[in-house]
Amino acid sequence: MSIIYSLDIIGTFSFAISGALVASKKKFDLFGVVIIAFVTAVGGGMMRDVLINYHPINWIGDLNYIWTILIAVLFAFLFKSKILPLSKTLFLFDTIGIGVFTMLGTEKGLNFGLHPFVAVVMGVVSAVMGGVLRDVLTQKTPLIFKKEIYALACFIGAFTFLVLHHVKAPHNVQYIITILTVVIIRLIAVKFHLELPKIKDDLFTKNRNN
Amino acid sequence: MSIIYSLDIIGTFSFAISGALVASKKKFDLFGVVIIAFVTAVGGGMMRDVLINYHPINWIGDLNYIWTILIAVLFAFLFKSKILPLSKTLFLFDTIGIGVFTMLGTEKGLNFGLHPFVAVVMGVVSAVMGGVLRDVLTQKTPLIFKKEIYALACFIGAFTFLVLHHVKAPHNVQYIITILTVVIIRLIAVKFHLELPKIKDDLFTKNRNN
Amino acid sequence: MSIIYSLDIIGTFSFAISGALVASKKKFDLFGVVIIAFVTAVGGGMMRDVLINYHPINWIGDLNYIWTILIAVLFAFLFKSKILPLSKTLFLFDTIGIGVFTMLGTEKGLNFGLHPFVAVVMGVVSAVMGGVLRDVLTQKTPLIFKKEIYALACFIGAFTFLVLHHVKAPHNVQYIITILTVVIIRLIAVKFHLELPKIKDDLFTKNRNN
Repeated sequence: MSIIYSLDIIGTFSFAISGALVASKKKFDLFGVVIIAFVTAVGGGMMRDVLINYHPINWIGDLNYIWTILIAVLFAFLFKSKILPLSKTLFLFDTIGIGVFTMLGTEKGLNFGLHPFVAVVMGVVSAVMGGVLRDVLTQKTPLIFKKEIYALACFIGAFTFLVLHHVKAPHNVQYIITILTVVIIRLIAVKFHLELPKIKDDLFTKNRNN
Repeated sequence: MSIIYSLDIIGTFSFAISGALVASKKKFDLFGVVIIAFVTAVGGGMMRDVLINYHPINWIGDLNYIWTILIAVLFAFLFKSKILPLSKTLFLFDTIGIGVFTMLGTEKGLNFGLHPFVAVVMGVVSAVMGGVLRDVLTQKTPLIFKKEIYALACFIGAFTFLVLHHVKAPHNVQYIITILTVVIIRLIAVKFHLELPKIKDDLFTKNRNN
Repeated sequence: MSIIYSLDIIGTFSFAISGALVASKKKFDLFGVVIIAFVTAVGGGMMRDVLINYHPINWIGDLNYIWTILIAVLFAFLFKSKILPLSKTLFLFDTIGIGVFTMLGTEKGLNFGLHPFVAVVMGVVSAVMGGVLRDVLTQKTPLIFKKEIYALACFIGAFTFLVLHHVKAPHNVQYIITILTVVIIRLIAVKFHLELPKIKDDLFTKNRNN
């Protein structure tokens, strides 16, 4: 319980930082930054909880999410000049958050008695929808549709969790392996510029008003 | 029951094809295409179920939606070169889906004991919100706001269903007449370039950052 | 009860007018205008009710919301030529709606037994999410991120309500002071061009496809 909870808070912090930095880059101000950080951090879990009818949803039932996000925004503001050049750090934060939320969402789905495949979708929803909401609100093409490895990493991570859960591996092993799977796949994909074929940004940009 | 269910699956397949083709046109890759197909196909029904608090929502309670969408995406990929030039086919798929979902959403609302007018709104929500979500995620102006006949066809279809339901017409008659009403209105509207006045795309495009 | 309800209807009417005028400006047609008016007017309360699992949600449980919106759209169409030049009137409508919904959302959250801070967030959600949905659907950068005073006014209003509620001020006093707080802060902010620093529209526009 305690390790899951810690990971959830770390994931929330990571996502809030990532949201705050995106919003800062867009020159949003304090409140805009807080809102984008909030949506990025709790949006995926919130959507998952609404879809499976789990109430109170994440941040309503536990005030620590809100505190974590506010601290993350403060942190981002204080160290922005040091963080912004470190786009690798931002990326790492984001990747850790994705791994943690994939794992948490899949487990929550299983605990809720959902079919394993639906639980996998819930893992992916938890991990990616915060970022999708962030991108919609800041009028960017959701990152997930440009760099599909992002979603693929979540899917593979969620399926890894299913298998580990099925063979009743120790809980901590389930958690760590799942998170590492997501993180490593994404790091490798970016390192070697792996992308699934057919994504052409320029074409996309030209066609966007069609 | 059986005929409704078949129609639901056909509508889901149609919408998934339509979503997959839009995403392909945008040069999204496999995962992006699957996600857009998914959102297009189940988005309207999902929103309806969340709004009326019907759980488990459509695709969580019945795995066949997910299978149907995956098969539709596979189908779209295999026959893309043959489907893409057939924009009329795409349009027909989309129109059938709209008719089916209008009918299903309105009936579900009535069965749920909602006021008939709210049931009509649920029919329209079921039919159009999948497409709206698809358009928001692919950064297009939602089609429904450009070609309003789309929504008008749903409204008229939903009201037709209300009347047929009120006079206790045989179920199959209710279903078929409602779907045909939506399909025919839309086909006529497009055939004769009927649009409600005042929509000017170029003006819209110029003003979009205002 | 009666005064809250009247204020809710006034807020709904104000937001629907504001939504209808934005949609008219975009040259949307009747159905597009109705849909944007609808989403603007009930979107915030709808989101609040879904998040706190309050069912039936606002416009499903009470048909007066739909009637109010339809009358507002009719009103906007009939008097559009007179309303459109009056951008100050539009702004005032919008501001009153924001004040009313902030108050109603915060109170609903408190009555629902939520933590006061979560209740404040619910007040802000009720007040701003209708406008955010309107802006996303009409492909504008949500106003709230450009003119943050908007959100700040809601936050201060919601906290004012918390204090007045805590000291058990008479209900009507709670309502009026809260609404006036939001309205006055926003009016002052706009009058004196107060904005929180760092928002640069041109920069934002240039970067929007990044």
